[in-house]
Amino acid sequence: MSYSELYRNALLSDVIPFWEKKSLDIEHGGYFTCLDRKGKVYDTDKFTWLQGRQAWMFSFLYNNVEKKDSWLNVAESGITFLKDKAMTSDGTFYFSLSREGKPLIQPYNIFSDCFAAMAFGQYAKATQKEEYFELAKKTYSSILNRRSNPKGVYEKSTGNRPLKSFSLPMILSNLVLELEETLTREEVEETIDYSRKEVMTTFLSQENGLVYENVNPDGSFNDSFEGRLINPGHGIEAMWFMIDIGIRLKDQELIKTASQTILNILEYGWDQKYGGIFYFLDIKGYPPQQLEWNQKLWWVHLESLVALSKAFLHTKNPKILSWYDKVHKYSWKHFPDKQYGEWYGYLDRQGSPNLELKGGKWKGCFHVPRGLYQCWKSFEAVESKYSLHN
Amino acid sequence: MSYSELYRNALLSDVIPFWEKKSLDIEHGGYFTCLDRKGKVYDTDKFTWLQGRQAWMFSFLYNNVEKKDSWLNVAESGITFLKDKAMTSDGTFYFSLSREGKPLIQPYNIFSDCFAAMAFGQYAKATQKEEYFELAKKTYSSILNRRSNPKGVYEKSTGNRPLKSFSLPMILSNLVLELEETLTREEVEETIDYSRKEVMTTFLSQENGLVYENVNPDGSFNDSFEGRLINPGHGIEAMWFMIDIGIRLKDQELIKTASQTILNILEYGWDQKYGGIFYFLDIKGYPPQQLEWNQKLWWVHLESLVALSKAFLHTKNPKILSWYDKVHKYSWKHFPDKQYGEWYGYLDRQGSPNLELKGGKWKGCFHVPRGLYQCWKSFEAVESKYSLHN
Repeated sequence: MSYSELYRNALLSDVIPFWEKKSLDIEHGGYFTCLDRKGKVYDTDKFTWLQGRQAWMFSFLYNNVEKKDSWLNVAESGITFLKDKAMTSDGTFYFSLSREGKPLIQPYNIFSDCFAAMAFGQYAKATQKEEYFELAKKTYSSILNRRSNPKGVYEKSTGNRPLKSFSLPMILSNLVLELEETLTREEVEETIDYSRKEVMTTFLSQENGLVYENVNPDGSFNDSFEGRLINPGHGIEAMWFMIDIGIRLKDQELIKTASQTILNILEYGWDQKYGGIFYFLDIKGYPPQQLEWNQKLWWVHLESLVALSKAFLHTKNPKILSWYDKVHKYSWKHFPDKQYGEWYGYLDRQGSPNLELKGGKWKGCFHVPRGLYQCWKSFEAVESKYSLHN
Repeated sequence: MSYSELYRNALLSDVIPFWEKKSLDIEHGGYFTCLDRKGKVYDTDKFTWLQGRQAWMFSFLYNNVEKKDSWLNVAESGITFLKDKAMTSDGTFYFSLSREGKPLIQPYNIFSDCFAAMAFGQYAKATQKEEYFELAKKTYSSILNRRSNPKGVYEKSTGNRPLKSFSLPMILSNLVLELEETLTREEVEETIDYSRKEVMTTFLSQENGLVYENVNPDGSFNDSFEGRLINPGHGIEAMWFMIDIGIRLKDQELIKTASQTILNILEYGWDQKYGGIFYFLDIKGYPPQQLEWNQKLWWVHLESLVALSKAFLHTKNPKILSWYDKVHKYSWKHFPDKQYGEWYGYLDRQGSPNLELKGGKWKGCFHVPRGLYQCWKSFEAVESKYSLHN
């Protein structure tokens, strides 16, 4: 089977049906995401990140794969929950809610808003309803307004060690392309310029070609737990957002640098002993704070596959294809659950499931299907030019 | 070698010298706690929990083992750092500071205050200086005043799912005995009553004999990630605090129930496959949120040894001794670093070091030496009555 067929089948015959069957809360709207190995709901709390991501995913499939009413209905359920329950009166988003939609955790986390904005944007494209374009635009503006202090009153640092965080420019570089139809051309170009510059010059180190998670305000290295932190999956994911921007800007140099950065990070972050990509590393080789540092996470591997597939499509560099094959082989050997479908999320260092869940507080209907879709499409394009088979 | 000799030697010939040699910040006062396998400082941030705990430990050794000036000097260095740098103008404590003592993380965490109060109390006993009795008393009052909302403005929950947390009554049950010389008799008895009742009736389940981390305000089970959480080491540690209270109150029934609870938790939390005690479990067997749930942590095992040693001394139950032998064997096989001294903190499920550090943000000079001291003393008493050899 060709790569494109393999990824397409997994998306449409395994992963999407799993979430369609298991995750819908018919009674209260929105999605259950805490699903055990078999897909049985083990907790009913609703996490805004995952509500937004699943509503986005089904709107995206409707827009890009097939105009299936059932997909649009799944999306609508999450969109309504986001709009009616998860949004506060000032347009920010609670982090989590009870099944019925009672707020549980305050809007301390700006990424809830980012995933809500993504969802509203794709759903607006799908329905062409002005209300959702407006909601997407309003949420996007609120994110930009909170940019300098994203945690607001919940910020615990004193300000004595001001650090810039990679996450926000990184996510904005994707969100802005998602909202291209929603925003004005000036707004889009301004955020592309900002996030591209932040990602590729502030956080991408010229010295070692890796991406830092936190740097001093002037972009220099900060020798602390936060400053030494490398999150390989995060840096690699950002690089495919950069390739997407490179395609839009027809900027071959950007695509080339992003592709090289993917290779740098993979060479640095690959576990030579057991295979797979580490979750967290300390750039000086010191012990990271995170006890889960050497676990192998689904999203890290899926984002790497997406990044490599896009990098290969646009550079034809055989070194990238050989890394794709390596990450593909590891991922397909360890993550998919052949018995009950979908993918495991959390493997131990050795590659066995550390938690058998299919969904939880952080894993939902997002990285697996988005990754499968992106790889399908990249290899469809690659295979139409070459003859590559698995 | 008898248990008492083994634990005494490890304390006085290995662990305490390690911290005396490696952790002192001669220039700025206080302690480095981020020490790699060999004891080399890899990060200089100072965490108030660990500053307080080490100052407490050295004051305690001075008070209980030997009146060594060098120990009192080590304690003084941390006490001065706590008082002059870590304490805010309103008497609460920053969570962390730079090496020089610039505050980094706000006082969102009331346990910083608890460990500072413990340290002031032991140091006051050692020096008999009124200033430190006063500081201990003031800090203790401030903790009690914040009891109903310990995180203050940093609390992220909305209040729609009010939960009582086990940590505070648990730690107060130990702190109050630590501060017995500082507080009035009424204050001591009030907190003993409160914490004993909370620990033994609110959080200890009559149904399954285990200790929950979070319960509904009326003490009933809450079916959420937080409500389902079992932290075996935490529950077991609380049981030796209860045994200490039982001894003080001459309450055999309390000692008996606490001892039985230790057995219940060990039988529930022991890893049948690889040995050792799990870090976190979900009472319904669902996947816990914590990715490190199956790791084996130093403090969990040391607190279990302390609890079992006290339980055996006061009940003579042979089942407890046989559990002691089992936990002892596991712990001494996996945690001590035979090459560079002290104990590893973080093992993977299989029992190999997951991080080779000797200290970090959470591990300092506390659980290992306190545990070794307590087991030494329990077995000294046991051995003077029986003839038990390792």
